[in-house]
Amino acid sequence: MSVKPTLKNIKYENYKIGDSAFHAKTVTEADVIIFAGISGDFNPIHVNDEFAKTQQFGKRVVHGCFSSALISAALGVKLFGPGALYISQKVDFRKPVYIGDTLTAVATVKEKFTKKEGKLKFLKVETNVYNQDDVLVTEGEALILIM
Amino acid sequence: MSVKPTLKNIKYENYKIGDSAFHAKTVTEADVIIFAGISGDFNPIHVNDEFAKTQQFGKRVVHGCFSSALISAALGVKLFGPGALYISQKVDFRKPVYIGDTLTAVATVKEKFTKKEGKLKFLKVETNVYNQDDVLVTEGEALILIM
Amino acid sequence: MSVKPTLKNIKYENYKIGDSAFHAKTVTEADVIIFAGISGDFNPIHVNDEFAKTQQFGKRVVHGCFSSALISAALGVKLFGPGALYISQKVDFRKPVYIGDTLTAVATVKEKFTKKEGKLKFLKVETNVYNQDDVLVTEGEALILIM
Amino acid sequence: MSVKPTLKNIKYENYKIGDSAFHAKTVTEADVIIFAGISGDFNPIHVNDEFAKTQQFGKRVVHGCFSSALISAALGVKLFGPGALYISQKVDFRKPVYIGDTLTAVATVKEKFTKKEGKLKFLKVETNVYNQDDVLVTEGEALILIM
Repeated sequence: MSVKPTLKNIKYENYKIGDSAFHAKTVTEADVIIFAGISGDFNPIHVNDEFAKTQQFGKRVVHGCFSSALISAALGVKLFGPGALYISQKVDFRKPVYIGDTLTAVATVKEKFTKKEGKLKFLKVETNVYNQDDVLVTEGEALILIM
Repeated sequence: MSVKPTLKNIKYENYKIGDSAFHAKTVTEADVIIFAGISGDFNPIHVNDEFAKTQQFGKRVVHGCFSSALISAALGVKLFGPGALYISQKVDFRKPVYIGDTLTAVATVKEKFTKKEGKLKFLKVETNVYNQDDVLVTEGEALILIM
Repeated sequence: MSVKPTLKNIKYENYKIGDSAFHAKTVTEADVIIFAGISGDFNPIHVNDEFAKTQQFGKRVVHGCFSSALISAALGVKLFGPGALYISQKVDFRKPVYIGDTLTAVATVKEKFTKKEGKLKFLKVETNVYNQDDVLVTEGEALILIM
Repeated sequence: MSVKPTLKNIKYENYKIGDSAFHAKTVTEADVIIFAGISGDFNPIHVNDEFAKTQQFGKRVVHGCFSSALISAALGVKLFGPGALYISQKVDFRKPVYIGDTLTAVATVKEKFTKKEGKLKFLKVETNVYNQDDVLVTEGEALILIM
């Protein structure tokens, strides 16, 4: 028998409507640079400060998908963990996010349903991201399949 | 006059249905480690090889949102660039992506429409991601506002 | 009132001897390169594959302090979170860790005690790190002050 | 003959009590974000500026283990290099380290001793870390085995 603790898969039955988890982080310049580096999204609005000054928001804006990444953490570590399959994600980028903003991704179970005579078990999850002023910057919805 | 080239904002009129661009990249172990690092998504299916061996896919799976990040690059650098505002994104994670897979995110303009008497100009864009075997791993749709 | 969830500080009273948490991760080449990069520890045994082949272990060895970093995560996220102050850490590097090993850092409360007439509340925590073969690679002990 | 310089293992006889080396670096926000990323230690005191403002120190604190990483560099590159085996490390986190602080890790040989009739040769090393105001932020001791 292993001395190490083991990871247990989670069960559909254990989730209730309203179950919630969050993941919060201050988005730094380093995050933006690294995200640009691994994604290849070098749109100047994200990485060119001089260009950004000439545009609508007046400064560099964090990639919208960085919000999605924080949602992924709230879902995949805080709310679900092992045994949950990420089926789909919808995000509306409502407000710009700036370097230095502190984002909180909140995932909340909104609906439970099954398909194929109960063999496939799904959770519909609200995935909203707020900044430090409680402004909803990204509104979204995820679908999770519980194995 | 500056010796540097300047970035020009793009115009709604210049886009046609069927306009397309892609962004392709081999997803390395480093990408996964770094994506986990900036997002905080340390779900063991992504970062724990021993755990992943015991699960459905038999090995570590790349974060679904990494596909979204590549879509962001295809949209924000290759197809649009400055002057386009990323309004929303929907993604369906259809097939698992593994470390070493080469992903190609393809963005294709599907629809043009305006709101508020032509003041707001939108493009609906199909955003699909394929692996090296031409398997559609992530299917999606984005909405872009042209400023 | 904020719509965002808030982080609650933890209480000394809630911890019991034997309380335990773990943090597990496959250590990749990217982790080693990045750790070298932020620490400046470019000892050739970690970053020079040709040199490492000529040495005792025959291949590159992961920095001992990488184990400490995983212990920090097990303590600071999984077992304690907000309101705990990391006072000290002792680590014995017992066995080499190689790139590709999956490490599990396990933190277990071993002792509770107070100082200054109960004003300062401490927990002594065993912090052991195992590899995928259940070999104890790093043995340690941490002291935590609960605020 | 190779044009490359070769790395020579060091000898126990060459070390004297008082031998000393240091490694210094300004700790940036990027270092903290990257350290959190590879370790998984996302304790909000390190990565959530809004939370940190509500706590004892009033701002984000650098991971204690980052000091250990700088000690590792002072030991493994500046003082020892090839042929030295890192046996153990003890650190006391005496004062908080903030983003922007410049840390200097100083390693000083304090004691030489052998075991098993002189076959195993050890050095006891003081490993202290100071900030830009000469405040001792981390006090420690390492044991090194010379191969």
